[in-house]
Amino acid sequence: MNKNLIRYVMGWVLIILAIMLLLPVIVSFIYNDGCWKYFLMLSGGCGFIGGVSSKFKPKKSQMFVKEGFVSCALAWLLLSIIGALPFVISGQIPDFTNALFETISGFTTTGATILGTDRQIEDLTKSMLFWRSFTNWAGGMGILVFILAVVTPMSGQSNMYLMKAESPGPVVSKLIPKLKNTAVLLYAIYIAMSLLEFVLLLIGRMPVFDAITVTFSTAGTGGFSIKNAGIAAYDGHYFQQGVITVFMVLFGVNFSAYYLLICRKFMQVFKFEELRWYLVIYGLAVGAIGLDLTFRSNVFTNQRDIWHHAAFQVATYASSTGFATADFDLWPEFSKNVLLVVAFIGACAGSTGGGLKVSRIIILFKNAFKELKTLLHPNSVVSVKMDGKTVKDEVIRSTSVYFTLFVFVYLFSVLLLSFDDMDFTTNFTAVLATLNNMGPGLNLVGPTRNFFDYSVLSKYVLMFDMLAGRLELIPMLMLFSPLSGVRKRIKK
Amino acid sequence: MNKNLIRYVMGWVLIILAIMLLLPVIVSFIYNDGCWKYFLMLSGGCGFIGGVSSKFKPKKSQMFVKEGFVSCALAWLLLSIIGALPFVISGQIPDFTNALFETISGFTTTGATILGTDRQIEDLTKSMLFWRSFTNWAGGMGILVFILAVVTPMSGQSNMYLMKAESPGPVVSKLIPKLKNTAVLLYAIYIAMSLLEFVLLLIGRMPVFDAITVTFSTAGTGGFSIKNAGIAAYDGHYFQQGVITVFMVLFGVNFSAYYLLICRKFMQVFKFEELRWYLVIYGLAVGAIGLDLTFRSNVFTNQRDIWHHAAFQVATYASSTGFATADFDLWPEFSKNVLLVVAFIGACAGSTGGGLKVSRIIILFKNAFKELKTLLHPNSVVSVKMDGKTVKDEVIRSTSVYFTLFVFVYLFSVLLLSFDDMDFTTNFTAVLATLNNMGPGLNLVGPTRNFFDYSVLSKYVLMFDMLAGRLELIPMLMLFSPLSGVRKRIKK
Repeated sequence: MNKNLIRYVMGWVLIILAIMLLLPVIVSFIYNDGCWKYFLMLSGGCGFIGGVSSKFKPKKSQMFVKEGFVSCALAWLLLSIIGALPFVISGQIPDFTNALFETISGFTTTGATILGTDRQIEDLTKSMLFWRSFTNWAGGMGILVFILAVVTPMSGQSNMYLMKAESPGPVVSKLIPKLKNTAVLLYAIYIAMSLLEFVLLLIGRMPVFDAITVTFSTAGTGGFSIKNAGIAAYDGHYFQQGVITVFMVLFGVNFSAYYLLICRKFMQVFKFEELRWYLVIYGLAVGAIGLDLTFRSNVFTNQRDIWHHAAFQVATYASSTGFATADFDLWPEFSKNVLLVVAFIGACAGSTGGGLKVSRIIILFKNAFKELKTLLHPNSVVSVKMDGKTVKDEVIRSTSVYFTLFVFVYLFSVLLLSFDDMDFTTNFTAVLATLNNMGPGLNLVGPTRNFFDYSVLSKYVLMFDMLAGRLELIPMLMLFSPLSGVRKRIKK
Repeated sequence: MNKNLIRYVMGWVLIILAIMLLLPVIVSFIYNDGCWKYFLMLSGGCGFIGGVSSKFKPKKSQMFVKEGFVSCALAWLLLSIIGALPFVISGQIPDFTNALFETISGFTTTGATILGTDRQIEDLTKSMLFWRSFTNWAGGMGILVFILAVVTPMSGQSNMYLMKAESPGPVVSKLIPKLKNTAVLLYAIYIAMSLLEFVLLLIGRMPVFDAITVTFSTAGTGGFSIKNAGIAAYDGHYFQQGVITVFMVLFGVNFSAYYLLICRKFMQVFKFEELRWYLVIYGLAVGAIGLDLTFRSNVFTNQRDIWHHAAFQVATYASSTGFATADFDLWPEFSKNVLLVVAFIGACAGSTGGGLKVSRIIILFKNAFKELKTLLHPNSVVSVKMDGKTVKDEVIRSTSVYFTLFVFVYLFSVLLLSFDDMDFTTNFTAVLATLNNMGPGLNLVGPTRNFFDYSVLSKYVLMFDMLAGRLELIPMLMLFSPLSGVRKRIKK
């Protein structure tokens, strides 16, 4: 393995982190909460070490798969550990495990929190709240891709591996031939959409600080909120919650669709199978829950509230954001199960959302259908097609394997959590909430509760799940797998 | 599709059913419970219609895949519907849905029951109890394979399809060149082992009727009991429960292993990867639960009880039998989760047990490992091996698809059950219990409860799951799939 190269990349990660840590310094000055010194100190430290590490470009800058995956896992661990320090040093989340949980939850855009039991979210100072929400936004954009595609581009093919590791979904499609340009374009869309949401929230009369942090969490499909009550704190503000609903759905869409829109290729957007199914699933789920709440429950007393909250809650689960405007743990069992299924499926590939991704589900379904056909008529040649093109065997295979690993990691996590003697529903949905980067689950980790009561062991299991979910399993599994041995034997 | 052929095969199914229905007639005479007339009447009816239907052999006796799957699904529906009639006509389970549930649960070797709420199991007469337990035994041996391989062998390759459809596991291996001889040999092993268990139970001083019915349920890995309390009714009889434990494990073993033992190929038995893992998983699970019960629970007061019940309960979940000697719903959460994982994995392929099957899990694991290796070193050639032989790509593919379909059917079933407003743990384990042909779940379908309270819709969902689990999904999915249309278009 090319350790020099990894050292170099980690140097850049630290530099980016140093820059990011300057933002809460500004916030701290504005609100005069005295926390600027913690952020500034860390920023300086990161900047110095990062500057030294990244000073010498390695001789061999060719990045192979193994360097890609290892860099990926290490970078995210580095970001999370250092990102957690402000909470610890300032004493606002004094326990390191809890602070790390919160930060990993932030960077992985999960939004699961340990705040709300011994400390309330509102107890944090403004700059800490800002930093916490900002991790959602930074995590959504994929920091490593940013570094390797934009800041310090390396030789050609190498970065595709990284994009593979860090960006969600079964296939990475280069929108435009040069990777750097693709990345810049995607970030431009990300920033433009974030700004648009921010402005709309201001128009809806949301306070500026709230609008900024809510935008961060929506754009990254993270789900952190600066209130214990979450988005329910904005109860009655239908416009604000409506804006959030729309943007949650939008940030769950494959960003390639926006690129096509910019290029005015409207017909191609319509032909986007994943997008169509994403919207169909969204519509069906809202319909099912709306009807369920109307006819089989009296949680809400009027139709407006029913459809408003159904639309919001499905959006938050489909996009894996994890906001809550209502305590859906009190909804009928069927509605809750629809939410769970929607959460499993997740958002579109190439979005900031989590979950298995709609395109994977489509490929798995079509492949199963193909197998049944082949079984009936062994000599027929059937292929799996998506968007009119044949899906490569390699993609089908890796999708199947991904699904297998996903279920195995899922069940093993539930098994480990069960040591804590919480009930099965809590553990099952806690893993769903973290592995799919969603946020809240049901019962003891439901929308009005949090993850504080889990033991340290369980919290580390859930942190692993959050990282594994965000990095799409492989890099995290590689870190722990016996393959590391194999890796050594394979020549450089 | 060759309808004549299917008519002919269904005729034979009815004849076998007619013969089977004569057994409870004898029991009824012995215990003088007056139910002989119901069984005799049905037996006569089946015998007559079956005799007429099977009189004319179809001109084309070549059985293609589609006929295989359709025959399979139809035969099991026919067996279940007619098998349910004695309960309905005699008024002992007057509701048809409940009677059908009980019979499907019997034939599929699930052992989930609706008895115990409005009617107790002990309310049934002896001949009905006999018939109920006998369905477990008959279902375990695979009735259709019996007909097509032994009773009325058709042209060569055709029956392999059926064996594929009806027998559990990813690969069907012909033990000896002629299929008929293989089948006869397997049945001989099945009957011999059943007799052995029966004799051992008698030696353990179990009453004759109890010993017969318990043997039926153990051999088929069914799990029906003639007592409301299940096998806990034999509390304190460590020898009897011990015999059952050992035989549950034995009936979960791939029967090919016994064939090798008979041939004195002891070394080959040791090399059987699936068998080794099955035993390792069994040992680990018993160890984990034993320690959990020792150190983190006070359900049992002495070590003997702890290890006795742990060994029994893991055996019942690993083999998908579903007996209970203890209310494991009161065990600590970790022990319960270990049981769930064991249940997911299931027994060996080619046994009477259910679940995903150990060999499938091995293949999925090895394939995932292979993909990770290939990812690291794209040019390396790695293949998945089992028992020293390379597993065909076709088998890997169909195993992956099976796993996908399994999870999809699983989640969809839980979603449908949630209409009944029972809790998530109940629904989740109810599907596990039926789709894996196990029997009891947790909470409201736990070992001291039953499936009576589910709505009619949910009961039909669970019946579908039991059949889908027993027939390994494909035939049941084909019955409902849009592929039936495709099937018509494909020539004949």
